[in-house]
Amino acid sequence: MISLKRKVAILGATGAVGQRFIQLLQGHPWFEIEVLAASERSAQKKYRKACNWILESEMPQNIGETRVVDTSVQSVENAAKVDLIFSSLPADIAGPVEEEFAKKYPVFSKASVHRLEEDVPLLIPEVNPDHLALIPIQKRERGWNGFISTDPNCSTIQLVMTLKPLMTFGLKEVVVSTMQALSGAGYPGVASLDIVDNLIPYISKEEEKIETEPLKILGTFDGNRVRQANVTISASCNRVAVKDGHTESVFVKLEGKPTIEEVKEAFGNFNGEPQALRLPSAPEKPIVVREEANRPQPRYDRNEGNGMSVVVGRMRKDPLMTLKYTCLGHNTIRGAAGAAILSAELMTAKGYV
Amino acid sequence: MISLKRKVAILGATGAVGQRFIQLLQGHPWFEIEVLAASERSAQKKYRKACNWILESEMPQNIGETRVVDTSVQSVENAAKVDLIFSSLPADIAGPVEEEFAKKYPVFSKASVHRLEEDVPLLIPEVNPDHLALIPIQKRERGWNGFISTDPNCSTIQLVMTLKPLMTFGLKEVVVSTMQALSGAGYPGVASLDIVDNLIPYISKEEEKIETEPLKILGTFDGNRVRQANVTISASCNRVAVKDGHTESVFVKLEGKPTIEEVKEAFGNFNGEPQALRLPSAPEKPIVVREEANRPQPRYDRNEGNGMSVVVGRMRKDPLMTLKYTCLGHNTIRGAAGAAILSAELMTAKGYV
Amino acid sequence: MISLKRKVAILGATGAVGQRFIQLLQGHPWFEIEVLAASERSAQKKYRKACNWILESEMPQNIGETRVVDTSVQSVENAAKVDLIFSSLPADIAGPVEEEFAKKYPVFSKASVHRLEEDVPLLIPEVNPDHLALIPIQKRERGWNGFISTDPNCSTIQLVMTLKPLMTFGLKEVVVSTMQALSGAGYPGVASLDIVDNLIPYISKEEEKIETEPLKILGTFDGNRVRQANVTISASCNRVAVKDGHTESVFVKLEGKPTIEEVKEAFGNFNGEPQALRLPSAPEKPIVVREEANRPQPRYDRNEGNGMSVVVGRMRKDPLMTLKYTCLGHNTIRGAAGAAILSAELMTAKGYV
Amino acid sequence: MISLKRKVAILGATGAVGQRFIQLLQGHPWFEIEVLAASERSAQKKYRKACNWILESEMPQNIGETRVVDTSVQSVENAAKVDLIFSSLPADIAGPVEEEFAKKYPVFSKASVHRLEEDVPLLIPEVNPDHLALIPIQKRERGWNGFISTDPNCSTIQLVMTLKPLMTFGLKEVVVSTMQALSGAGYPGVASLDIVDNLIPYISKEEEKIETEPLKILGTFDGNRVRQANVTISASCNRVAVKDGHTESVFVKLEGKPTIEEVKEAFGNFNGEPQALRLPSAPEKPIVVREEANRPQPRYDRNEGNGMSVVVGRMRKDPLMTLKYTCLGHNTIRGAAGAAILSAELMTAKGYV
Repeated sequence: MISLKRKVAILGATGAVGQRFIQLLQGHPWFEIEVLAASERSAQKKYRKACNWILESEMPQNIGETRVVDTSVQSVENAAKVDLIFSSLPADIAGPVEEEFAKKYPVFSKASVHRLEEDVPLLIPEVNPDHLALIPIQKRERGWNGFISTDPNCSTIQLVMTLKPLMTFGLKEVVVSTMQALSGAGYPGVASLDIVDNLIPYISKEEEKIETEPLKILGTFDGNRVRQANVTISASCNRVAVKDGHTESVFVKLEGKPTIEEVKEAFGNFNGEPQALRLPSAPEKPIVVREEANRPQPRYDRNEGNGMSVVVGRMRKDPLMTLKYTCLGHNTIRGAAGAAILSAELMTAKGYV
Repeated sequence: MISLKRKVAILGATGAVGQRFIQLLQGHPWFEIEVLAASERSAQKKYRKACNWILESEMPQNIGETRVVDTSVQSVENAAKVDLIFSSLPADIAGPVEEEFAKKYPVFSKASVHRLEEDVPLLIPEVNPDHLALIPIQKRERGWNGFISTDPNCSTIQLVMTLKPLMTFGLKEVVVSTMQALSGAGYPGVASLDIVDNLIPYISKEEEKIETEPLKILGTFDGNRVRQANVTISASCNRVAVKDGHTESVFVKLEGKPTIEEVKEAFGNFNGEPQALRLPSAPEKPIVVREEANRPQPRYDRNEGNGMSVVVGRMRKDPLMTLKYTCLGHNTIRGAAGAAILSAELMTAKGYV
Repeated sequence: MISLKRKVAILGATGAVGQRFIQLLQGHPWFEIEVLAASERSAQKKYRKACNWILESEMPQNIGETRVVDTSVQSVENAAKVDLIFSSLPADIAGPVEEEFAKKYPVFSKASVHRLEEDVPLLIPEVNPDHLALIPIQKRERGWNGFISTDPNCSTIQLVMTLKPLMTFGLKEVVVSTMQALSGAGYPGVASLDIVDNLIPYISKEEEKIETEPLKILGTFDGNRVRQANVTISASCNRVAVKDGHTESVFVKLEGKPTIEEVKEAFGNFNGEPQALRLPSAPEKPIVVREEANRPQPRYDRNEGNGMSVVVGRMRKDPLMTLKYTCLGHNTIRGAAGAAILSAELMTAKGYV
Repeated sequence: MISLKRKVAILGATGAVGQRFIQLLQGHPWFEIEVLAASERSAQKKYRKACNWILESEMPQNIGETRVVDTSVQSVENAAKVDLIFSSLPADIAGPVEEEFAKKYPVFSKASVHRLEEDVPLLIPEVNPDHLALIPIQKRERGWNGFISTDPNCSTIQLVMTLKPLMTFGLKEVVVSTMQALSGAGYPGVASLDIVDNLIPYISKEEEKIETEPLKILGTFDGNRVRQANVTISASCNRVAVKDGHTESVFVKLEGKPTIEEVKEAFGNFNGEPQALRLPSAPEKPIVVREEANRPQPRYDRNEGNGMSVVVGRMRKDPLMTLKYTCLGHNTIRGAAGAAILSAELMTAKGYV
């Protein structure tokens, strides 16, 4: 039987996010992995040898036997014919590599380098699917047959998913303090000696991302480009001894004065095109509201909706701003590989891929 | 040789804070422990048997052999003549017990129950020593020979020590998100199963304390009572897998626009009566400023100034408020037993004891 | 449709093992939960209120609404008609309660109290199903309509499952050093302050159990009773900061001199009646052999076979004994609730229930 | 005033053990640091820039300003005149570098490469100071003005210190299972993602070391060389989530049948030349015996004797061997930098340096 699935190449396949791509694409109804690409150091090796697999589920047998190629277009094309590209390349090398692929292929990128470019969507499928209108502009302006679509930073995605339903109440200001998981730093990432009985109140470049990316995501497409949302964000980012799942203490100022019940309803009823289109990776509920005083907690809530839901709790009046709450998301699923896959699903459903 | 040291009784001597009192009072030049009092369950037992000692330093030999008494005035007096009382009783029983002692003795209380009473000082010796003027009012109004002086909640103390020097810049608003250590919950406190690969975004009654206590501490004594400072605080409190040392992400709005250098100077030069009087437990620098991008960190900084200094770092402009920074303090030393001892030292030096 | 499932009561339903019973019995093809019994403190409350649920999967909705009863036969019978009893009562109260139920019902007990009684099977279904011949003796001697069947201690089960296939090589001596998970101590169990940046080289009564229980389990039923196996075991038991999954360093002296390959084959091919009978909870492979130098590891291997497989690795020649290896099992599944359920399945299949 | 202290160069100064050397040599009465040498990557940089300092105590100010040199003899000599060398170079490069220095200088090496060479002492100062008789043989045979003295592996040192007093009871066999600290793997060493809620039952080459090194250390110098002790050792080595302090479950077979009291006395009374000579780093008691059922524990006991004592507990009869117990030592102090310093002190006192 001929498979009608789209063929996928993963750039950066041996890293922590690359592994999640592989895990999440097992048995995917629309996509199948054809090519695993990584740095020169890994190229030519079997994936099993090239990769330090850090997921609890077993490395799929056939993946382990696949020979890794380098990240050039030619090497990928020599390996197999592919339809689209997932990239979790490191920020410092992603730029030109992704652009080279985008000349011919749809590229779904987790790297930060292209996120803020004016003709590149910074997409959360439930939040700003209308920004996909940038794609034809990008293709035209750059003369590409393919394109680049980017996903926001992990700590941004879960925050913005909770901010979007608050826009109806007149969102103006956000203060957020994060407690981010170890897997967010990749592998080997944070040394155990740095985090035992400790935390680190700093993550390089994280605050800049969480303070700027939401303004674009929540912004309005005016027919030509995205006008930034009129929201101001201040962040303080911390690393804690949790394997997966970022937790964020959020304080927001709203123009309106919704009751806590209204806020819960706005969170609980929030959904978007992924749910309407029943995309394969779309969680039934993008935001899950917990009523317990001490939730969400990473170990209990990070796998909600197969890791694609954001869990919120502790919604309460703020004595200074308007509202405060805690949100939690799985940083390598909804915050990384799952985000890119959902983006690709949306764009496939809409005919971009 | 006759000891001229003040004789001390510790109420709640077997708990986590009680143990810190014992540790910190070893070899103290002014105070010596005479009586260890605890609940009925511990009374009559040798301290060694009554206590699950959780400090890394050894339980002092003579303390281990001391027989614990119950927390009634009579039992304490039967055990020995004492001059002052340190209380780390649980909040739910501290109220009447401390009042009974205060009729005759100076009581230095870590319990929350009396903190907000109008004639009771809520003291941080470097911050509001002028509030000791409440003591004669309290004694007169209540007809007591002794008195009650209280110390703030652990997460409050370190925050307020950093807010005080910001008052000169016109402090108006504070948002704070805490990452608090396990020892803050006492012993056995947090179950290991609750915190392995996890955090808990909730600490019962903690946010209420950190939002209200600073207003009194930073308030002005008007000759009769303390008028609350005109500051608004919003807090979100979290428990993390760190043994000792609370870390706080702080965002403040100031009327003035100090440069970061001016803020660092204000922090670094901050000191008060404990330093001027060279009190035995006073740290040379109440606030230690770290310049590294990733400090303060609990494991490295909690013992600064023998656990009596607060360490600040990451001072930076805030895009929304005025300033943001991270502060860290040892929650069972500066945040608990050390706080009470420093208060007792100040009041001894000033003739209240 | 009439359910033909056996109706189950769980004694000790609110504890850590009780919760695993509930989780593992969801959708079980043969058993369904009818009654949740626990201490007086919990009785009359809805399970949701009585229980601090510590599993990552959600508490089943209908279980949460079930009203807990006390652990008397009468209270259980008033609540519903049941066919068999799972007991995870604390050791100090299990004795008489389980006996009372055993007069009428099959009782599957995780408590230690009856394990070494001469007419009570200490069962691992893959290892000693022939010991079920004790059941008719027990019923006759005690005049009971029901019976008590016991499961070994968690650290014993996984060890003995690996010792059984070594019996063919003439097993004589065993030295074992354990690194046991926090969940083995129940909830709240180990205080976080006791285990952060630490381990505890002692578990009360654990070494006695692991040194004696295997002798009975590996023993021979002679028609009347079980004759102990001629094996000597020495154990040293340690608690480490791992949530689930006991790891054991095992050193064994054998009369034979099998090659490492022969040992791997013996482990890998090991199976028993649960596999032959395709019992619902039987893992396909009771022992899974890992070839990697650094496996098994708790976080990666504890859920092998839905937590019912024991994972072994590092099989190597021993310079002093004959063989050494590392084994790992999920202590609250194969080591507790899953063990009892598999025992009940075996005895149901064989007509005892 | 002219300093009469011996001038020291540290090879591998930026690593985890190198940092301990620096920390432990602060204010040392006999030695002072003159040269810090490390890899080409660090050379020419100020130590503060070259080193990721991971100790809780602050990096000494003057050390931070010292410029690191590469590890060639010439570079060290260009930097300053030195009297002796401490080496914590990685095993793969230590060999030729240490030999080059040994032509002219006493070299105290923590690397494994020279440990088992016939004319090189493998020294624990309390255990085998008579092996220093190898030094003149080594110098003569190799034609060196200097020499190499080595310290055993961290897990070996603490084990052998407890085995030595058991030699009088006829020590024959040892089974040991270790639970080793993260700092034993250096920095960055173990990735946090590998150890959160986990342990690793494997440490590369560790078992080989702990099974062979003690035979030499406990061996007898026969006038020409060391004859291995007639003891057989089997080890299983595990990494656990503890920052510092290796814990070992030890099982020993003795020819004699000492009572537990006699064993405790043998442990508690054990001492050697470092104590007799009152060497600056010698702990008063090389072995500290704890009577509590649940000690030693790393967080409580690793700093005993300033990290130079080994702590033993849980001495009990073994049902299979003769005796079992738990021992614990600070792996980067007694197990590494402190070991080399104590060796240098002994050899200085005896005129070798």
